[in-house]
Amino acid sequence: MTSDRHHDAVRLARVGLSRVLEPRDVTGHLILQALGPVAAWEVISGLRGVTGTEHGALEATIRAYGKPLPGGGGLNAATMTQRWSARAQDCDPARDWSRAMQQGLWMCMPEDPDWPAALRDLQQAEPVCLWGRGDRTRLRDLSDRSIAVVGSRDCSTYGRSVTFDVAGGVAARGWTVLSGGAYGVDEAAHRAALATGVGPVPTVAVMAGGVDRLYPVGNQALLEQVVQEGLVISEAAPGTMPARFRFLDRNRLIAAVGRATVVTESRWRSGAQSTAHHAAELSRPVGAVPGSVQSATSAGCHRLIREGSAVLVTDVDDVLGLVAPLEAHGESPHGADSKTGQTAMFDGLSESDRHVADALPVTQGATVDSLARVAGLPVRAVLGGLRRLERAGLAVDRGGLWVRPRRT
Amino acid sequence: MTSDRHHDAVRLARVGLSRVLEPRDVTGHLILQALGPVAAWEVISGLRGVTGTEHGALEATIRAYGKPLPGGGGLNAATMTQRWSARAQDCDPARDWSRAMQQGLWMCMPEDPDWPAALRDLQQAEPVCLWGRGDRTRLRDLSDRSIAVVGSRDCSTYGRSVTFDVAGGVAARGWTVLSGGAYGVDEAAHRAALATGVGPVPTVAVMAGGVDRLYPVGNQALLEQVVQEGLVISEAAPGTMPARFRFLDRNRLIAAVGRATVVTESRWRSGAQSTAHHAAELSRPVGAVPGSVQSATSAGCHRLIREGSAVLVTDVDDVLGLVAPLEAHGESPHGADSKTGQTAMFDGLSESDRHVADALPVTQGATVDSLARVAGLPVRAVLGGLRRLERAGLAVDRGGLWVRPRRT
Repeated sequence: MTSDRHHDAVRLARVGLSRVLEPRDVTGHLILQALGPVAAWEVISGLRGVTGTEHGALEATIRAYGKPLPGGGGLNAATMTQRWSARAQDCDPARDWSRAMQQGLWMCMPEDPDWPAALRDLQQAEPVCLWGRGDRTRLRDLSDRSIAVVGSRDCSTYGRSVTFDVAGGVAARGWTVLSGGAYGVDEAAHRAALATGVGPVPTVAVMAGGVDRLYPVGNQALLEQVVQEGLVISEAAPGTMPARFRFLDRNRLIAAVGRATVVTESRWRSGAQSTAHHAAELSRPVGAVPGSVQSATSAGCHRLIREGSAVLVTDVDDVLGLVAPLEAHGESPHGADSKTGQTAMFDGLSESDRHVADALPVTQGATVDSLARVAGLPVRAVLGGLRRLERAGLAVDRGGLWVRPRRT
Repeated sequence: MTSDRHHDAVRLARVGLSRVLEPRDVTGHLILQALGPVAAWEVISGLRGVTGTEHGALEATIRAYGKPLPGGGGLNAATMTQRWSARAQDCDPARDWSRAMQQGLWMCMPEDPDWPAALRDLQQAEPVCLWGRGDRTRLRDLSDRSIAVVGSRDCSTYGRSVTFDVAGGVAARGWTVLSGGAYGVDEAAHRAALATGVGPVPTVAVMAGGVDRLYPVGNQALLEQVVQEGLVISEAAPGTMPARFRFLDRNRLIAAVGRATVVTESRWRSGAQSTAHHAAELSRPVGAVPGSVQSATSAGCHRLIREGSAVLVTDVDDVLGLVAPLEAHGESPHGADSKTGQTAMFDGLSESDRHVADALPVTQGATVDSLARVAGLPVRAVLGGLRRLERAGLAVDRGGLWVRPRRT
């Protein structure tokens, strides 16, 4: 089999798997991980059983996973096949694939060079593939500079306004906004990003159903605009209806792709809470915007802050401060493109002092020792640097804890 | 000298010292600490110099203080006396004392049995004495069950409303509200406490000037009512004008006496921030109520939460949850009086499980190990207890971090 023909076989296998495997089908995903897509599809679609060698690989993968499989016990070929056979019978990956091409959709998979690397952090919950609409070349820019902006559907005027400020500010600095497709906060986030965006991908909508079914209907025109100027993506095969559980699974993708997640307004129980918790589990920074304690629409944000699951953020500076501080002020993670006043202020500093300045957090203060660790400098150099930065207004001493001053 | 006569001498000395020593006069307070009030007054008022023995005691106290004295260098008898002589010349403690008695004021000092023990945590910044108006027997109830409720003078309608809810709730549970005498949040806190209070001391106002000068004038009627039903206290001698620096010094007393401090609404720069920081330095819990990020009147609260100086609180349950959880639900710190539904729920539990329940935090989750430390139980007992408490709805597992469930 040539490399191209192998890639085609992998693609068709993943097309089939994306229709049969739900994101939370741990067993199915472990089979995919252990056998690779082509063999996994042969087994899962019931074409053949697991060979002896494969069984060994599978058991090693399950051991590495380290948690009991749902339903208890080990693997049982008969049960396994029953699970998927009903769905697999209706499945024709080649037909699915040609239909998707006709509809102008694309599919990206982990074997492709433009697969968002951030999704690998999901481990066995990494999606089988991503279906998408919009210029696929935009996919490359996603993980580096994107912020998830999420919240409740039934947001207040305040929540809408705050979402506009945050998402609009994120997009105006050239970053990508990432959200769902729902009414309320999601919708406001996309509208703001489309209005203010200056970067290559102002906004990306991650759908719970197929990307050919833009849901909800009332947001279709907006989501079509997102297709034109950004991306609409989903792990669900085209034609999939957006069931309730798919929204919760979808949230892990938003959390994984975003460099940070911000909840602009959310109720005590809200899908946005799940996105925030997914992000925290993935060690992505999480921010939440507070609001009136007399408004139930902010109770979820307050809960996240109280629990320590989110940092309180009040504006786009705080939000971008959640990720690396210099990037927040317009410097690209690759160090090259734009320069702002803040970075220009650093120009007069020695390289060592710039390292100290870069190491300063914007929210919780850092001790001199931890700054020395982060900056990779001796404590003495950090102390001297802090004194100079303080004089230049670039560092603030808060009782022994040092922070970068807020820009007022 | 009999014990009574000695007590009288101490009182007169402290009356004099309270007029001469400003709270931030570190040298003066160290002299008071080293020599005791009577000798300190003799030295500070210029009646005599420091003896050789006293000099040794003084140097030991200064060494124990551990920080350089203001103005640098050690003690210089001449400089010291100059510092205080101008004020001391006008000072007549006996006259001050009899005038205060005529005005119906009282004075409480560290040598008295009703001195609020919490003030000792201030160490060398412990006040010389407290001047007060209102039924002095109320002083005994202060430290055990009081919550400082503070905030900005120019509060918004929201801030006033939140202050009413918080201070009203605190007083309605029999706790004492502690605040300043300013317009805005202070005023709202006293009004709410007077309206809802059910305990022996609904509210206490701590003044920056003398208690005979109720300031500001517009709050005089309110503060007279506080005298009637609660207490008005100050460390400043009667007749002292409330200068700006005295407000900042006064804040340390509010922070020290309160079991916890809550900032209900405050601007980026506000006296309430200083009260919160004093409380944090004294290891008292601090809460802050969030609000709209679009309102400058909440920026101080958000700052405290972001910095980690305050916990986000949304209502009186959160506020009382800052202090020991059981007390928050109506149990007295001495364990006797009222029983609420929450504590009744604990009745079916073993003593060991009650210890686990008591150890559960309400805000940030605790690991099993830290619960074992707090409850003084083996890890195995904590694990079993948590399982039983979880079934009873008295513990919640948040991904390995355990908390007491919120009452909804």
